[in-house]
Amino acid sequence: MTIRKATDQDWPRIYPFYATIMGEGKTYPFPERQTLDEGRPWWMEEPPGQTVVAVTGDDTITGSAKMGPNRPGRGAHIATASFIVDPACRGQGIGRALGEHFLSWARSERFHGAQFNAVVEANHPAVHLWQSLGFRIIGTVPEAFDHPEHGLVGLHVMYQKL
Amino acid sequence: MTIRKATDQDWPRIYPFYATIMGEGKTYPFPERQTLDEGRPWWMEEPPGQTVVAVTGDDTITGSAKMGPNRPGRGAHIATASFIVDPACRGQGIGRALGEHFLSWARSERFHGAQFNAVVEANHPAVHLWQSLGFRIIGTVPEAFDHPEHGLVGLHVMYQKL
Repeated sequence: MTIRKATDQDWPRIYPFYATIMGEGKTYPFPERQTLDEGRPWWMEEPPGQTVVAVTGDDTITGSAKMGPNRPGRGAHIATASFIVDPACRGQGIGRALGEHFLSWARSERFHGAQFNAVVEANHPAVHLWQSLGFRIIGTVPEAFDHPEHGLVGLHVMYQKL
Repeated sequence: MTIRKATDQDWPRIYPFYATIMGEGKTYPFPERQTLDEGRPWWMEEPPGQTVVAVTGDDTITGSAKMGPNRPGRGAHIATASFIVDPACRGQGIGRALGEHFLSWARSERFHGAQFNAVVEANHPAVHLWQSLGFRIIGTVPEAFDHPEHGLVGLHVMYQKL
């Protein structure tokens, strides 16, 4: 597996599993049922942020991450990111590799810390993965996510200093 | 004091104290040094959100608030808001009135809860005001705000169920 910067041409190849994951509605408070064009600005980051893809040897895209400053102005020294893995490729460590790539990028860009604003508490694999990569739960906003199976569940704010 | 919905014509009258407050850099991780046109989409909310102004009897604008869903999709049942008061009009209860107006609006719109994502911990008047209106601190992201006087200070996530 290789992780490289995404190009404009990659978006139509990311979009199918982006749409699947957002349509499942279990992991991100993103708009659902976005078209190809509607979803593009939600996932393809402009500088100083970036979007990357995880690819196999034949350049099949198996996952993607977008990253950048969490806030503008006086909050721009904290990085944030979002991650999606093609459901057909789960369990292969792609999410972990993307997470490690994000932290490496954030350190190289001299961010002071890394923050996830809305980790669905019912998404145990993600919570455990981020904890294993050094994040801790700062707090949990109760009932802030409308889960299709579990109803209203909390959203964790997770953080680590870099 | 009256609170009413802001019109497009109000923005040039909000902008002077918006620019002053963002330029002071003590309360919001917003872009600084925005022009009139750059700042407009950051403050003037589109439906389902709205922007309101506090006005005196002669329609002088003394403060403003913007409010709307905190997140799209499966997070859209939680409301959020931001508040600014003309520095020349501080200490008159305008922030409190705008905060009460926001909570009233969020309840009438059937939001499930209200969340502030980034309350500067050094902004004690705001923290105390929101606590007095029913918000509690869910957690504090350390060193997430670059304060011009205090250096890196935390950002509180504050919440209340409605």
